[in-house]
Amino acid sequence: MMRLDSSAAGLFPIAVTPFTPDGKVCSASVDSMTDFYLSCGATGLTILGIMGEAPKLDLQDSLAITKQVCARAAKIPVIVGVSSPGFAAMASLARGAMERGAAGVMIAPPSNLRTDDQIVNYYAQAIEAIGDDIPVVVQDYPLTLTVVMTPKVLRTIFQNHASCVMLKHEDWPGLEKISAMRGFTADGSMKPISILTGNGGLFLDFEMERGADGAMTGYAFPDMLADVVRLSKAGEREAAHDLFDAHLPLIRYEQQQGAGLAVRKYVLMKRGAIRSDAQRKPASSITAKAKAEVDYLLARLARKDRRAAV
Amino acid sequence: MMRLDSSAAGLFPIAVTPFTPDGKVCSASVDSMTDFYLSCGATGLTILGIMGEAPKLDLQDSLAITKQVCARAAKIPVIVGVSSPGFAAMASLARGAMERGAAGVMIAPPSNLRTDDQIVNYYAQAIEAIGDDIPVVVQDYPLTLTVVMTPKVLRTIFQNHASCVMLKHEDWPGLEKISAMRGFTADGSMKPISILTGNGGLFLDFEMERGADGAMTGYAFPDMLADVVRLSKAGEREAAHDLFDAHLPLIRYEQQQGAGLAVRKYVLMKRGAIRSDAQRKPASSITAKAKAEVDYLLARLARKDRRAAV
Amino acid sequence: MMRLDSSAAGLFPIAVTPFTPDGKVCSASVDSMTDFYLSCGATGLTILGIMGEAPKLDLQDSLAITKQVCARAAKIPVIVGVSSPGFAAMASLARGAMERGAAGVMIAPPSNLRTDDQIVNYYAQAIEAIGDDIPVVVQDYPLTLTVVMTPKVLRTIFQNHASCVMLKHEDWPGLEKISAMRGFTADGSMKPISILTGNGGLFLDFEMERGADGAMTGYAFPDMLADVVRLSKAGEREAAHDLFDAHLPLIRYEQQQGAGLAVRKYVLMKRGAIRSDAQRKPASSITAKAKAEVDYLLARLARKDRRAAV
Amino acid sequence: MMRLDSSAAGLFPIAVTPFTPDGKVCSASVDSMTDFYLSCGATGLTILGIMGEAPKLDLQDSLAITKQVCARAAKIPVIVGVSSPGFAAMASLARGAMERGAAGVMIAPPSNLRTDDQIVNYYAQAIEAIGDDIPVVVQDYPLTLTVVMTPKVLRTIFQNHASCVMLKHEDWPGLEKISAMRGFTADGSMKPISILTGNGGLFLDFEMERGADGAMTGYAFPDMLADVVRLSKAGEREAAHDLFDAHLPLIRYEQQQGAGLAVRKYVLMKRGAIRSDAQRKPASSITAKAKAEVDYLLARLARKDRRAAV
Repeated sequence: MMRLDSSAAGLFPIAVTPFTPDGKVCSASVDSMTDFYLSCGATGLTILGIMGEAPKLDLQDSLAITKQVCARAAKIPVIVGVSSPGFAAMASLARGAMERGAAGVMIAPPSNLRTDDQIVNYYAQAIEAIGDDIPVVVQDYPLTLTVVMTPKVLRTIFQNHASCVMLKHEDWPGLEKISAMRGFTADGSMKPISILTGNGGLFLDFEMERGADGAMTGYAFPDMLADVVRLSKAGEREAAHDLFDAHLPLIRYEQQQGAGLAVRKYVLMKRGAIRSDAQRKPASSITAKAKAEVDYLLARLARKDRRAAV
Repeated sequence: MMRLDSSAAGLFPIAVTPFTPDGKVCSASVDSMTDFYLSCGATGLTILGIMGEAPKLDLQDSLAITKQVCARAAKIPVIVGVSSPGFAAMASLARGAMERGAAGVMIAPPSNLRTDDQIVNYYAQAIEAIGDDIPVVVQDYPLTLTVVMTPKVLRTIFQNHASCVMLKHEDWPGLEKISAMRGFTADGSMKPISILTGNGGLFLDFEMERGADGAMTGYAFPDMLADVVRLSKAGEREAAHDLFDAHLPLIRYEQQQGAGLAVRKYVLMKRGAIRSDAQRKPASSITAKAKAEVDYLLARLARKDRRAAV
Repeated sequence: MMRLDSSAAGLFPIAVTPFTPDGKVCSASVDSMTDFYLSCGATGLTILGIMGEAPKLDLQDSLAITKQVCARAAKIPVIVGVSSPGFAAMASLARGAMERGAAGVMIAPPSNLRTDDQIVNYYAQAIEAIGDDIPVVVQDYPLTLTVVMTPKVLRTIFQNHASCVMLKHEDWPGLEKISAMRGFTADGSMKPISILTGNGGLFLDFEMERGADGAMTGYAFPDMLADVVRLSKAGEREAAHDLFDAHLPLIRYEQQQGAGLAVRKYVLMKRGAIRSDAQRKPASSITAKAKAEVDYLLARLARKDRRAAV
Repeated sequence: MMRLDSSAAGLFPIAVTPFTPDGKVCSASVDSMTDFYLSCGATGLTILGIMGEAPKLDLQDSLAITKQVCARAAKIPVIVGVSSPGFAAMASLARGAMERGAAGVMIAPPSNLRTDDQIVNYYAQAIEAIGDDIPVVVQDYPLTLTVVMTPKVLRTIFQNHASCVMLKHEDWPGLEKISAMRGFTADGSMKPISILTGNGGLFLDFEMERGADGAMTGYAFPDMLADVVRLSKAGEREAAHDLFDAHLPLIRYEQQQGAGLAVRKYVLMKRGAIRSDAQRKPASSITAKAKAEVDYLLARLARKDRRAAV
């Protein structure tokens, strides 16, 4: 069985959860979407994240999707989001996911946490609940979760728990945080960890230069994310920025909270990754005007990147 | 099958969820606790509420408790809290609870709701998800949930949905809100609804005088709550206040957020309602000093109300 | 000139700011209110706090009130609330207040602070802005401010700044925090500080027993607060609780956020401390029903404490 | 005297407040900055906004800056941000600003507002406090203020108050809100208003196409904002997007909360608009790495827009 460790790098797309227009999980699209991410150069995959409409799924749905994706993407590690209001549900999902082939789980702090101690204790309790043998990704996403974890707090968590191997970095602004975390490993005060970055890719160009290992986000052109990660690691700075900048108008458009998922699914549908852009209720939607705007952005992008000619 | 309707009144205790010291649901205590509430004069029962550690339970636990309580308290309506981050989990629990004998469900708004329209829409979506044949209690608890529902918004929800039959009133301060809601029914702009009040009972004396139908809260002396409701309805104002005031020092002590549940379970254990005051993790605890303070409050109370001599 | 230090104890009422019905500061009532607090046994006075409608005052108003109160209450230390969104305004008010006879200032953290470091840094910056020669009261009020300061964070602040001499304790639940802070001084890790408690007095009985030095709150019977502090320090536990419990129904009623200030001013007016219960806009108000409820509580209280016969 | 009205359009830069390295307002830079904005094609100017470090200024500072800017930019309307925790301070600043030549004031809702009615009432009270003869800009900025105003609530405010003439649109995502507000005027349910957009310009390309009248934001190339507004109004869609897209990598970089102001001032200093990029304490700062990143972005931008060759 594959297990996530701190050497993880490259592109871990945050997968959407495909639904049929009547709100059922679209099993056919789960397969085609997985194949699409693999063809885009994914080195791992993250499912049931916040953008994956995870809270709209019940346990049965969640485990079925996990099983299907892990089987289809057997060659790469699959991370499963297990954030829950309570540890019982978190542990049920985490253990169930690992049994179905997941390589690790991702845990975000609940939004009522405030003090440094509360955050450190929360991860201790969560890891006690799920077991310390399951690799854990710590999700740092203050913009949505309103929980602020300083670099020192994150270091404490990673030092306290051998099973914590990756930081899903989604602070904003967050470039200095990447530098700070890398500095901890450099000065010997923290073990090496994997850092993958989120925020829809909006700062991926500079995040790589600050020391990130790759991207973990859901932008509808994961192939571009993979390219930018590769170019940046290869030292081809100008080429990385040129490609990134070409996509930035659309990245920016997709990054709108709420509306973003509707745009993302719309583009993924146009690219053939999923059959329908339906969201399970409560759904955000995309107006005719917004669709026309996205189409216009795609048309402009296609002049520089043919993959956008959909 | 019993179904909750707008004539509900009296005392609906918010039941704790009893655990064994090693974190399992204590089945024996579920029965003894149910019997205790019945002996206290409960006219209904609410389980799996926020104070009932519901987020710490998984679906299986939740349904098992529901089944056991509904069987044991077959003569009175049982309301099951089904608030969930997503509608799939909410619907699973709501339907499962009704199949096991529940009389209705209670739904609190998620804390990210802000505008009047968002709140009204949320209840529309929730009721669509669970089905409009399940009686619904609208839980109004801004202190913890940070969602503020004006009387007008509540009226809209009650008028939009025939299945919404009860308001769990827990706004603070909230006396004027009771008057406002009763005014809507008086002026013909809203159907009659049942209003039961929470907040640990801290304002029950005046809530009854403003028109509440009873109490729905978890204070460890539900027999006192039943007495105050009865005395107040009988017009024995002084007697109601005298009894209430005797308990107020302990009510106030139990009302402390976080610490309160530990106090409540400690007193319920002392009264024989449950075998252990254990909470499932993450648990709040009660220090030796706090226990001594509660014991002191009980001793003082026992001079006026013998039920406190435990 | 009197300067606040860590020996401060007893009763520091949080003064209301008296207005005329047309919204002007009522100068005559500023004097009569000060005299009233002195006659109640105040050993200090706090003005321009959150409940003192401070944000509704401009700098000119604030300094005029400070000057008048400091002159009138020349024998006791006066603390001035100087919390501000910016340090320029805070420093202007703090220095202006000290020039007019204040003994110290009170600073609450702004509600956007989250991490331990942010809170510690904020106090460092605030004290740099106002000067480290001004005695400072640290206001810990998470229920309203949403900033959670752990005992360790508070200790760091008190150890970092010699000018920080008092904790306005208003956490809820907060009894364990008093014990923790006293423990720090006992184990030698923190200098002795003064701890005065707020929350409308709702837990004063036990706060004193946990080691508080006194009360700093605005309950409309400050004379009762002074008595409870005195009785508790004299070891007359039963007498302290008996008096406290008699007032608890009204304390509880006054403690309602928003409505509370209207109740407090109404009672203070009835007691002759101020001429009008007017608040400057935006004002909370008290309905006829609420007035009747307060009058009823006063009548019941008067049977046990003649001071309530107003 | 110039007065703001609903015909306002074009570019209203959100001015920074220039400080000397020792924290004093830099009077020379106030002039040079004003001249810079004028030379960039500003058709109006907004000072003392949230990004203008307004909370760090005391009343005296604020009025002095207002006087100086209004005198220097006598040909264009100057809007002054007057948001305050209390109405007394707001009214003092608003009236003082108008006396010194301001054309109108901007008011943001305080972050504790929740319900629709609270928001509507707040603007009614604010306008009563400052007087209904002062033109008002309603600032809608939920990302920072956490207050969510629906289109219907905004319509009510604009219909209730003749003096409300402009919406500072800063919702995110916000394109549909612009369409909704324009729809209200089209269907006759709302008077015509001016809509200027913020968010650092991140969506200006499409905001103009949805019907905005121009930009009100602080991006360090206001000349580019003016160009995009002009090109978009002239129907030169491709040219508008081409220019916008060239700047988007830097716009995005400047948009980082906290860090953004440091970047903005750094670029404005490099462009000669202000002498120092100092912020008054508490200041965000820009590391050497971040400076190198901004310099790199400027170098890349300069290939497409010579104005970036600084």
